[in-house]
Amino acid sequence: MQQLDITKLKYDRSGLIPAIVQDYATREVLMVAYMNQEAVEKTLTTLETWFWSRSRQKFWHKGESSGNVQKVREIYHDCDKDTLLVLVDQKGAACHEGYYSCFHYRINRDCTVEIVGEQQFDPDEVYGKI
Amino acid sequence: MQQLDITKLKYDRSGLIPAIVQDYATREVLMVAYMNQEAVEKTLTTLETWFWSRSRQKFWHKGESSGNVQKVREIYHDCDKDTLLVLVDQKGAACHEGYYSCFHYRINRDCTVEIVGEQQFDPDEVYGKI
Repeated sequence: MQQLDITKLKYDRSGLIPAIVQDYATREVLMVAYMNQEAVEKTLTTLETWFWSRSRQKFWHKGESSGNVQKVREIYHDCDKDTLLVLVDQKGAACHEGYYSCFHYRINRDCTVEIVGEQQFDPDEVYGKI
Repeated sequence: MQQLDITKLKYDRSGLIPAIVQDYATREVLMVAYMNQEAVEKTLTTLETWFWSRSRQKFWHKGESSGNVQKVREIYHDCDKDTLLVLVDQKGAACHEGYYSCFHYRINRDCTVEIVGEQQFDPDEVYGKI
């Protein structure tokens, strides 16, 4: 069996690698966020997802505000070592808009967009009004 | 219904947006590649996947060398409009290493890596020896 040196994953010039988060049971794609090397280590150690927030420039333990943590079941890297795929058990819903998946905007061929899925929580109640 | 102005998707400073490609039937995540605005338009128009190859700096019609085209079934954007999810019928296999998915390297907690899945074709036969 090969050993992965996680310093050898291909991080971009900001030191980040995209991580696709997928529901382990249903295989629904939930979200994409970015990890730096330390976030990869924290995710492997704690078996909950940790990211680097590009907008807030700090670590982001998914669920720390909302309680909607992601328990890691499996992690994969791709053939180019520049993307991660993290299979999780999602508590609550993944999207900050209250939907189970962030990918709830379906684009039709004529560029109309339909919202797919049911809103599971009111973001104002979970995150507070800004 | 809302209308999407595809110039308003959030492209990065290189003008690219990541696109996750997922198998429509099994929901297996197959690969991630990058589209510019014109690749998004070509994908919506032809209903086959088009990307911008960052390494070759040119358009890449997936399957043009291998025949392993991806017929588009659904396209989604996420809540931040900075990632696309493309559900496809995959002909052959998606990965240039001959596996159905590019994500065939499972990382264990101790950082050992296991290859998951069966190689479906010999890359040398499909792409030719370099």
